[in-house]
Amino acid sequence: MRGTGKANVFGMLAHPIEHTKSPGIFNEIFEQSGLDSLMVPLTCRPDDFDTFWAGITAAENIRGLIISVPYKTAVYHKCSGAHDRAARVQSANSVRRQADGTWYADNFDGVGFIDALKAGAHQIAGQRILQVGAGGAGASLAYCLAEAGAAEIRLTDIDTGRAEQLASLVAKAFPGTRIAVGAPDPSGMHMAINATPVGMRASDPLPMDASKLTPDMTVVDIIMEPAKTALLRAAREIGCRVQPGRPMMDFQVQAMSEFFNIERRGAA
Amino acid sequence: MRGTGKANVFGMLAHPIEHTKSPGIFNEIFEQSGLDSLMVPLTCRPDDFDTFWAGITAAENIRGLIISVPYKTAVYHKCSGAHDRAARVQSANSVRRQADGTWYADNFDGVGFIDALKAGAHQIAGQRILQVGAGGAGASLAYCLAEAGAAEIRLTDIDTGRAEQLASLVAKAFPGTRIAVGAPDPSGMHMAINATPVGMRASDPLPMDASKLTPDMTVVDIIMEPAKTALLRAAREIGCRVQPGRPMMDFQVQAMSEFFNIERRGAA
Repeated sequence: MRGTGKANVFGMLAHPIEHTKSPGIFNEIFEQSGLDSLMVPLTCRPDDFDTFWAGITAAENIRGLIISVPYKTAVYHKCSGAHDRAARVQSANSVRRQADGTWYADNFDGVGFIDALKAGAHQIAGQRILQVGAGGAGASLAYCLAEAGAAEIRLTDIDTGRAEQLASLVAKAFPGTRIAVGAPDPSGMHMAINATPVGMRASDPLPMDASKLTPDMTVVDIIMEPAKTALLRAAREIGCRVQPGRPMMDFQVQAMSEFFNIERRGAA
Repeated sequence: MRGTGKANVFGMLAHPIEHTKSPGIFNEIFEQSGLDSLMVPLTCRPDDFDTFWAGITAAENIRGLIISVPYKTAVYHKCSGAHDRAARVQSANSVRRQADGTWYADNFDGVGFIDALKAGAHQIAGQRILQVGAGGAGASLAYCLAEAGAAEIRLTDIDTGRAEQLASLVAKAFPGTRIAVGAPDPSGMHMAINATPVGMRASDPLPMDASKLTPDMTVVDIIMEPAKTALLRAAREIGCRVQPGRPMMDFQVQAMSEFFNIERRGAA
């Protein structure tokens, strides 16, 4: 019978919201941890976002939210403080209530990604990496790859201007990493990463030129469903090491739990 | 792992919120019914109520709320439609989302009370009843007692003006019931009801003159905790039939479940 008046309330904001599974994942963590906390999915139309956010802020017992598309940037700009990971991409994927009632932003998109690579014993430091996709998640990844010591990042996006802008920002923040915009061609790279939604649908083309993959490469996909994307299947056939998207989510949940100050017992 | 993006979200609004148990009761009903729905406690400061409510209204997947002190009247006035039970007391204790996104109000304070009396085989029709308390809950009760055919209601409140106003409104709506303001004296009555919070604390005085109770009377207390108030203990000693507050809450939950369109399996 969880959900007394003393419960800490959390939300997961997205629009549309139907596809999300995060509240259930967190409710299971709360239950396993013996916590009287609850997470609910929340949605609003983009036109109503300011009104929605003011109301959520007025709801004093809402302690934190996970933020998804299309509200990561809008929520970031509502926060009075932010971790550098969120500030550099101007994007919040998690916010928590501060003592004065205002919000503090963080962004674990890249954190979960890097943690998952490390857990899979995939090296980043000193590596040459092709990254396809310079959108929301891609921006977080590129910063985190550079931060983790990647030697070189080749950045590709269908929006070349977006890729160039991101490359220039990351290069400025991490001058130790060579970063340049190029073709979706993994030739000469140690690692090739898909950071786009291309591959979620069975009819999608491959996000990169898989014919240039070689068995010594590691291929990473951030897509969670399907678990085995066409890219990962092609890479596996060639003999590459592969890294699916799901562990990235699991590590994000762990990082968010710490951010929300949830004391976990037992669970990974 | 309840709480997918498709979950229906409900809230329980009060200020303060810490004492409430309703969200937990509903979460148990949802779970027993195999529903992917969640109810969370919500609170805001009175100064922030308008902002809060606008935000809740913008949150499209919030399907309904239970409303408690001090927001029953304020929420009623935010609704675009209402059951007569809510309209006559200008007070909402439950609201649900309508197809156009606006709110519909109802009030089950009196309904749960009457249902509990009926379940306890306590007659109302034709009876003379002392009711102490003409506040929020008291107003709902007085209307429902008159509606259920009470012959006479003697109404008492520390705020005599409030008692007189309620008596006049109920008399107008239900001219078949004699209703007048009087002393907290059960003499000559069939039933004596405490509809005040007096009795929640051990140091509280009795809400009525218990020395005038006689064994043929029924004594009712709306207080849930303690289950056996000093009034009910005194009444039991005299030999009266007694009716505690908890069943009133249980019947309210049932009425609210129907209002929220929750299909219950198994549970009472």
